[in-house]
Amino acid sequence: METFATRGYHNASLAEIAERAGLTQAGVLHHFRSKAGLLTGVLDLRDQSDIGTLGEERPRGLAFLRHLVETAARNAEREGIVRLYAVLSAESVTEGHPAQDYFRTRYEGLRGLLVEALTEAGELGEIDEGIDPVAAASAVIAVMDGLQVQWLLAPEAVDMAAVTELAITALLGRPLPEAD
Amino acid sequence: METFATRGYHNASLAEIAERAGLTQAGVLHHFRSKAGLLTGVLDLRDQSDIGTLGEERPRGLAFLRHLVETAARNAEREGIVRLYAVLSAESVTEGHPAQDYFRTRYEGLRGLLVEALTEAGELGEIDEGIDPVAAASAVIAVMDGLQVQWLLAPEAVDMAAVTELAITALLGRPLPEAD
Repeated sequence: METFATRGYHNASLAEIAERAGLTQAGVLHHFRSKAGLLTGVLDLRDQSDIGTLGEERPRGLAFLRHLVETAARNAEREGIVRLYAVLSAESVTEGHPAQDYFRTRYEGLRGLLVEALTEAGELGEIDEGIDPVAAASAVIAVMDGLQVQWLLAPEAVDMAAVTELAITALLGRPLPEAD
Repeated sequence: METFATRGYHNASLAEIAERAGLTQAGVLHHFRSKAGLLTGVLDLRDQSDIGTLGEERPRGLAFLRHLVETAARNAEREGIVRLYAVLSAESVTEGHPAQDYFRTRYEGLRGLLVEALTEAGELGEIDEGIDPVAAASAVIAVMDGLQVQWLLAPEAVDMAAVTELAITALLGRPLPEAD
Protein backbone atom coordinates (compact mmCIF):
# COMPACT_ATOMS: atom_id res chain seq x y z
CA MET A 1 0.00 0.00 0.00
CA GLU A 2 2.76 2.44 0.91
CA THR A 3 4.66 1.92 -2.31
CA PHE A 4 1.61 2.32 -4.56
CA ALA A 5 0.53 5.36 -2.54
CA THR A 6 3.87 7.16 -2.70
CA ARG A 7 4.78 6.23 -6.28
CA GLY A 8 1.54 5.41 -8.10
CA TYR A 9 1.03 2.09 -9.82
CA HIS A 10 3.11 2.60 -12.96
CA ASN A 11 6.10 3.99 -11.12
CA ALA A 12 6.07 1.44 -8.29
CA SER A 13 8.73 -1.24 -8.63
CA LEU A 14 8.24 -4.85 -7.62
CA ALA A 15 11.84 -4.85 -6.40
CA GLU A 16 11.06 -2.12 -3.86
CA ILE A 17 7.84 -3.79 -2.77
CA ALA A 18 9.56 -7.14 -2.29
CA GLU A 19 12.37 -5.55 -0.30
CA ARG A 20 9.96 -3.69 2.01
CA ALA A 21 8.01 -6.90 2.57
CA GLY A 22 11.16 -8.92 3.25
CA LEU A 23 10.50 -11.18 0.25
CA THR A 24 12.16 -11.88 -3.05
CA GLN A 25 10.40 -10.68 -6.21
CA ALA A 26 9.73 -14.33 -7.01
CA GLY A 27 8.14 -14.65 -3.58
CA VAL A 28 5.81 -11.71 -4.24
CA LEU A 29 4.89 -13.10 -7.66
CA HIS A 30 4.21 -16.50 -6.14
CA HIS A 31 1.41 -14.93 -4.09
CA PHE A 32 0.07 -12.33 -6.55
CA ARG A 33 1.21 -13.52 -10.03
CA SER A 34 1.85 -9.98 -11.35
CA LYS A 35 2.13 -6.34 -10.33
CA ALA A 36 -1.48 -5.91 -11.49
CA GLY A 37 -2.52 -8.83 -9.27
CA LEU A 38 -0.76 -7.24 -6.34
CA LEU A 39 -2.59 -3.96 -6.97
CA THR A 40 -5.91 -5.81 -6.91
CA GLY A 41 -4.90 -7.38 -3.60
CA VAL A 42 -4.05 -3.98 -2.15
CA LEU A 43 -7.38 -2.52 -3.27
CA ASP A 44 -9.24 -5.49 -1.78
CA LEU A 45 -7.43 -4.95 1.51
CA ARG A 46 -8.25 -1.26 1.48
CA ASP A 47 -11.92 -2.08 0.88
CA GLN A 48 -12.15 -4.01 4.12
CA SER A 49 -12.26 -0.78 6.10
CA ASP A 50 -14.39 1.04 3.59
CA ILE A 51 -17.88 2.44 3.27
CA GLY A 52 -18.40 0.58 0.00
CA THR A 53 -18.57 -2.68 1.92
CA LEU A 54 -21.10 -1.63 4.53
CA GLY A 55 -23.79 -3.35 2.48
CA GLU A 56 -27.00 -4.02 4.34
CA GLU A 57 -25.48 -2.76 7.57
CA ARG A 58 -25.10 0.77 6.45
CA PRO A 59 -26.88 3.56 8.34
CA ARG A 60 -30.22 4.62 6.82
CA GLY A 61 -31.12 7.97 5.36
CA LEU A 62 -29.24 11.01 6.61
CA ALA A 63 -27.36 8.89 9.14
CA PHE A 64 -25.42 7.55 6.17
CA LEU A 65 -24.44 11.09 5.17
CA ARG A 66 -23.26 11.70 8.75
CA HIS A 67 -21.22 8.52 8.39
CA LEU A 68 -19.51 10.01 5.31
CA VAL A 69 -18.51 13.11 7.27
CA GLU A 70 -17.06 10.86 9.97
CA THR A 71 -15.16 8.99 7.26
CA ALA A 72 -13.68 12.28 6.05
CA ALA A 73 -12.66 13.10 9.65
CA ARG A 74 -11.04 9.67 10.06
CA ASN A 75 -9.27 10.07 6.71
CA ALA A 76 -7.41 13.08 8.08
CA GLU A 77 -5.72 10.60 10.46
CA ARG A 78 -4.68 8.15 7.75
CA GLU A 79 -2.81 9.97 5.06
CA GLY A 80 -1.46 6.79 3.45
CA ILE A 81 -4.91 5.41 2.65
CA VAL A 82 -6.05 8.78 1.32
CA ARG A 83 -2.96 9.07 -0.86
CA LEU A 84 -3.39 5.53 -2.18
CA TYR A 85 -6.98 6.21 -3.13
CA ALA A 86 -6.40 9.68 -4.62
CA VAL A 87 -3.44 8.59 -6.73
CA LEU A 88 -4.89 5.32 -7.98
CA SER A 89 -8.41 6.58 -8.71
CA ALA A 90 -7.08 9.33 -10.98
CA GLU A 91 -4.32 7.15 -12.47
CA SER A 92 -7.02 4.60 -13.30
CA VAL A 93 -8.26 6.79 -16.16
CA THR A 94 -4.96 6.30 -18.01
CA GLU A 95 -4.82 3.89 -20.92
CA GLY A 96 -4.98 0.23 -19.98
CA HIS A 97 -4.67 0.83 -16.23
CA PRO A 98 -5.35 -2.42 -14.33
CA ALA A 99 -7.61 -0.68 -11.78
CA GLN A 100 -9.83 1.07 -14.34
CA ASP A 101 -12.72 -1.41 -14.02
CA TYR A 102 -12.30 -1.46 -10.26
CA PHE A 103 -12.77 2.30 -9.98
CA ARG A 104 -15.54 2.48 -12.59
CA THR A 105 -17.47 -0.15 -10.62
CA ARG A 106 -16.62 1.48 -7.33
CA TYR A 107 -17.97 4.89 -8.36
CA GLU A 108 -21.12 3.31 -9.75
CA GLY A 109 -21.58 1.49 -6.45
CA LEU A 110 -20.92 4.60 -4.37
CA ARG A 111 -23.36 6.67 -6.43
CA GLY A 112 -25.91 3.88 -6.00
CA LEU A 113 -25.45 3.81 -2.21
CA LEU A 114 -25.85 7.57 -1.99
CA VAL A 115 -28.96 7.53 -4.18
CA GLU A 116 -30.48 4.88 -1.93
CA ALA A 117 -29.65 6.80 1.23
CA LEU A 118 -31.03 10.05 -0.19
CA THR A 119 -34.19 8.30 -1.38
CA GLU A 120 -34.63 6.87 2.12
CA ALA A 121 -34.08 10.33 3.60
CA GLY A 122 -36.86 11.63 1.36
CA GLU A 123 -39.21 8.85 2.43
CA LEU A 124 -38.35 9.46 6.08
CA GLY A 125 -39.15 13.14 5.63
CA GLU A 126 -35.57 14.05 6.52
CA ILE A 127 -35.02 16.11 3.36
CA ASP A 128 -37.21 18.12 1.04
CA GLU A 129 -38.74 16.64 -2.03
CA GLY A 130 -37.29 18.10 -5.17
CA ILE A 131 -33.71 17.15 -4.37
CA ASP A 132 -32.30 15.18 -7.30
CA PRO A 133 -30.65 12.18 -5.60
CA VAL A 134 -28.53 11.24 -8.64
CA ALA A 135 -26.99 14.68 -9.04
CA ALA A 136 -26.55 15.10 -5.29
CA ALA A 137 -24.86 11.68 -5.08
CA SER A 138 -22.27 12.65 -7.72
CA ALA A 139 -21.69 15.98 -5.98
CA VAL A 140 -21.12 14.47 -2.53
CA ILE A 141 -18.64 11.89 -3.83
CA ALA A 142 -16.90 14.52 -5.95
CA VAL A 143 -16.41 16.95 -3.10
CA MET A 144 -14.94 14.22 -0.89
CA ASP A 145 -12.54 13.11 -3.62
CA GLY A 146 -11.51 16.60 -4.66
CA LEU A 147 -10.81 17.61 -1.07
CA GLN A 148 -8.39 14.72 -0.70
CA VAL A 149 -6.02 16.07 -3.36
CA GLN A 150 -6.18 19.61 -1.94
CA TRP A 151 -5.58 18.25 1.56
CA LEU A 152 -2.64 16.05 0.54
CA LEU A 153 -0.95 19.08 -1.01
CA ALA A 154 -1.78 21.50 1.85
CA PRO A 155 -3.09 19.73 4.96
CA GLU A 156 -3.09 22.91 7.06
CA ALA A 157 -5.26 24.76 4.52
CA VAL A 158 -8.10 22.23 4.09
CA ASP A 159 -10.42 20.71 6.70
CA MET A 160 -11.86 17.71 4.85
CA ALA A 161 -14.58 16.87 7.38
CA ALA A 162 -15.79 20.45 7.89
CA VAL A 163 -15.96 21.21 4.17
CA THR A 164 -17.63 17.85 3.43
CA GLU A 165 -20.28 18.62 6.03
CA LEU A 166 -20.72 22.14 4.67
CA ALA A 167 -21.26 20.83 1.14
CA ILE A 168 -23.65 18.06 2.21
CA THR A 169 -25.80 20.31 4.38
CA ALA A 170 -25.90 22.87 1.58
CA LEU A 171 -26.96 20.25 -0.96
CA LEU A 172 -29.65 18.90 1.37
CA GLY A 173 -30.80 22.26 2.63
CA ARG A 174 -30.63 21.20 6.26
CA PRO A 175 -28.19 20.13 8.98
CA LEU A 176 -27.14 16.52 9.40
CA PRO A 177 -28.15 14.59 12.52
CA GLU A 178 -25.46 14.36 15.18
CA ALA A 179 -23.40 11.20 15.34
CA ASP A 180 -24.67 8.42 17.58
CA MET B 1 -0.24 16.66 -23.74
CA GLU B 2 -1.82 13.52 -25.15
CA THR B 3 0.93 11.25 -23.93
CA PHE B 4 0.98 12.66 -20.40
CA ALA B 5 -2.84 12.54 -20.30
CA THR B 6 -3.15 8.94 -21.43
CA ARG B 7 -0.15 7.53 -19.53
CA GLY B 8 0.54 9.86 -16.62
CA TYR B 9 3.92 11.47 -16.12
CA HIS B 10 5.88 8.53 -14.75
CA ASN B 11 4.65 6.08 -17.34
CA ALA B 12 5.06 8.42 -20.32
CA SER B 13 8.12 7.67 -22.44
CA LEU B 14 10.20 10.33 -24.13
CA ALA B 15 10.58 7.93 -27.06
CA GLU B 16 6.82 7.92 -27.66
CA ILE B 17 6.55 11.69 -27.26
CA ALA B 18 9.40 12.28 -29.69
CA GLU B 19 7.88 9.92 -32.24
CA ARG B 20 4.44 11.55 -32.04
CA ALA B 21 6.03 14.98 -32.45
CA GLY B 22 8.15 13.84 -35.39
CA LEU B 23 11.38 14.55 -33.50
CA THR B 24 14.26 12.54 -32.15
CA GLN B 25 14.57 12.22 -28.36
CA ALA B 26 17.66 14.41 -28.60
CA GLY B 27 15.52 16.97 -30.43
CA VAL B 28 12.92 17.00 -27.66
CA LEU B 29 15.64 17.32 -25.02
CA HIS B 30 17.24 20.17 -26.93
CA HIS B 31 14.04 22.17 -26.42
CA PHE B 32 13.01 21.01 -22.94
CA ARG B 33 16.19 19.62 -21.30
CA SER B 34 14.38 16.79 -19.46
CA LYS B 35 11.07 14.97 -19.17
CA ALA B 36 10.29 17.15 -16.14
CA GLY B 37 11.02 20.25 -18.23
CA LEU B 38 8.66 19.00 -20.91
CA LEU B 39 5.93 18.47 -18.31
CA THR B 40 6.35 22.05 -17.14
CA GLY B 41 6.03 23.20 -20.74
CA VAL B 42 2.83 21.21 -21.18
CA LEU B 43 1.34 22.64 -17.98
CA ASP B 44 2.26 26.17 -19.06
CA LEU B 45 0.53 25.57 -22.39
CA ARG B 46 -2.56 24.22 -20.66
CA ASP B 47 -2.67 27.31 -18.45
CA GLN B 48 -3.02 29.61 -21.42
CA SER B 49 -6.67 28.63 -21.78
CA ASP B 50 -7.32 28.46 -18.09
CA ILE B 51 -9.27 30.29 -15.41
CA GLY B 52 -6.14 30.59 -13.27
CA THR B 53 -4.73 33.12 -15.72
CA LEU B 54 -7.75 35.42 -15.95
CA GLY B 55 -6.06 37.73 -13.45
CA GLU B 56 -7.55 41.20 -13.31
CA GLU B 57 -9.88 40.42 -16.20
CA ARG B 58 -11.89 37.81 -14.36
CA PRO B 59 -15.62 38.36 -13.92
CA ARG B 60 -16.60 39.86 -10.56
CA GLY B 61 -18.67 38.28 -7.80
CA LEU B 62 -21.15 35.63 -8.81
CA ALA B 63 -20.38 36.13 -12.49
CA PHE B 64 -17.09 34.36 -11.74
CA LEU B 65 -18.98 31.37 -10.37
CA ARG B 66 -21.10 31.31 -13.55
CA HIS B 67 -17.83 31.32 -15.47
CA LEU B 68 -16.76 28.18 -13.57
CA VAL B 69 -19.96 26.40 -14.58
CA GLU B 70 -19.29 27.38 -18.20
CA THR B 71 -15.76 26.00 -17.83
CA ALA B 72 -17.21 22.68 -16.64
CA ALA B 73 -19.53 22.65 -19.68
CA ARG B 74 -16.63 23.39 -22.02
CA ASN B 75 -14.54 20.68 -20.34
CA ALA B 76 -17.09 18.06 -21.41
CA GLU B 77 -15.99 18.88 -24.98
CA ARG B 78 -12.26 18.48 -24.32
CA GLU B 79 -11.61 15.17 -22.71
CA GLY B 80 -7.85 15.29 -23.31
CA ILE B 81 -7.37 18.44 -21.23
CA VAL B 82 -9.58 17.07 -18.45
CA ARG B 83 -7.67 13.79 -18.41
CA LEU B 84 -4.31 15.58 -18.34
CA TYR B 85 -5.39 17.68 -15.39
CA ALA B 86 -7.09 14.88 -13.45
CA VAL B 87 -4.18 12.46 -13.85
CA LEU B 88 -1.37 14.93 -13.17
CA SER B 89 -3.00 16.74 -10.24
CA ALA B 90 -3.47 13.47 -8.34
CA GLU B 91 -0.13 12.01 -9.47
CA SER B 92 1.52 15.20 -8.17
CA VAL B 93 1.04 14.03 -4.57
CA THR B 94 3.43 11.11 -5.17
CA GLU B 95 6.96 11.34 -3.83
CA GLY B 96 9.25 13.71 -5.69
CA HIS B 97 6.78 14.42 -8.51
CA PRO B 98 8.03 17.32 -10.67
CA ALA B 99 4.58 18.99 -10.76
CA GLN B 100 3.99 18.93 -6.99
CA ASP B 101 4.90 22.59 -6.45
CA TYR B 102 2.96 23.55 -9.56
CA PHE B 103 -0.27 22.01 -8.26
CA ARG B 104 0.23 23.18 -4.68
CA THR B 105 0.61 26.74 -5.96
CA ARG B 106 -2.23 26.30 -8.40
CA TYR B 107 -4.72 25.19 -5.73
CA GLU B 108 -3.64 28.02 -3.44
CA GLY B 109 -4.20 30.44 -6.29
CA LEU B 110 -7.59 28.96 -7.21
CA ARG B 111 -8.78 29.05 -3.61
CA GLY B 112 -7.60 32.66 -3.42
CA LEU B 113 -9.51 33.60 -6.60
CA LEU B 114 -12.69 31.97 -5.28
CA VAL B 115 -12.36 33.66 -1.90
CA GLU B 116 -12.00 37.02 -3.66
CA ALA B 117 -15.01 36.39 -5.88
CA LEU B 118 -17.16 35.26 -2.95
CA THR B 119 -16.08 38.24 -0.87
CA GLU B 120 -17.05 40.52 -3.76
CA ALA B 121 -20.39 38.72 -4.05
CA GLY B 122 -20.97 39.41 -0.35
CA GLU B 123 -20.10 43.11 -0.78
CA LEU B 124 -22.36 43.36 -3.82
CA GLY B 125 -25.20 41.83 -1.81
CA GLU B 126 -25.35 38.87 -4.20
CA ILE B 127 -25.01 36.28 -1.43
CA ASP B 128 -25.92 36.13 2.23
CA GLU B 129 -23.52 37.09 4.94
CA GLY B 130 -22.47 34.13 7.00
CA ILE B 131 -21.12 32.13 4.08
CA ASP B 132 -17.53 31.13 4.87
CA PRO B 133 -15.67 32.02 1.66
CA VAL B 134 -12.62 29.89 2.46
CA ALA B 135 -14.60 26.69 3.06
CA ALA B 136 -16.90 27.39 0.10
CA ALA B 137 -13.86 27.97 -2.13
CA SER B 138 -12.38 24.57 -1.24
CA ALA B 139 -15.74 22.90 -1.79
CA VAL B 140 -16.33 24.41 -5.24
CA ILE B 141 -12.87 23.45 -6.49
CA ALA B 142 -13.21 19.98 -4.97
CA VAL B 143 -16.54 19.24 -6.59
CA MET B 144 -15.23 20.31 -10.01
CA ASP B 145 -12.11 18.13 -9.63
CA GLY B 146 -13.94 15.12 -8.26
CA LEU B 147 -16.51 15.22 -11.04
CA GLN B 148 -13.76 15.02 -13.63
CA VAL B 149 -12.62 11.58 -12.47
CA GLN B 150 -16.21 10.27 -12.29
CA TRP B 151 -16.93 11.70 -15.74
CA LEU B 152 -13.77 10.27 -17.34
CA LEU B 153 -14.76 6.81 -16.10
CA ALA B 154 -18.47 7.11 -16.99
CA PRO B 155 -19.23 10.12 -19.22
CA GLU B 156 -22.85 9.11 -19.74
CA ALA B 157 -23.52 8.96 -16.00
CA VAL B 158 -22.18 12.35 -14.93
CA ASP B 159 -23.14 15.85 -16.13
CA MET B 160 -20.21 17.96 -14.93
CA ALA B 161 -21.77 21.36 -15.63
CA ALA B 162 -25.18 20.55 -14.14
CA VAL B 163 -23.75 19.04 -10.96
CA THR B 164 -21.23 21.88 -10.59
CA GLU B 165 -24.07 24.40 -10.83
CA LEU B 166 -26.17 22.40 -8.38
CA ALA B 167 -23.34 22.34 -5.83
CA ILE B 168 -22.51 26.03 -6.23
CA THR B 169 -26.10 27.21 -5.95
CA ALA B 170 -26.55 24.98 -2.89
CA LEU B 171 -23.42 26.37 -1.24
CA LEU B 172 -24.46 29.95 -1.97
CA GLY B 173 -28.12 29.47 -1.18
CA ARG B 174 -29.29 31.11 -4.38
CA PRO B 175 -29.23 30.70 -8.15
CA LEU B 176 -26.36 31.97 -10.27
CA PRO B 177 -26.88 34.81 -12.72
CA GLU B 178 -27.37 33.74 -16.32
CA ALA B 179 -24.38 33.88 -18.63
CA ASP B 180 -23.84 37.10 -20.58
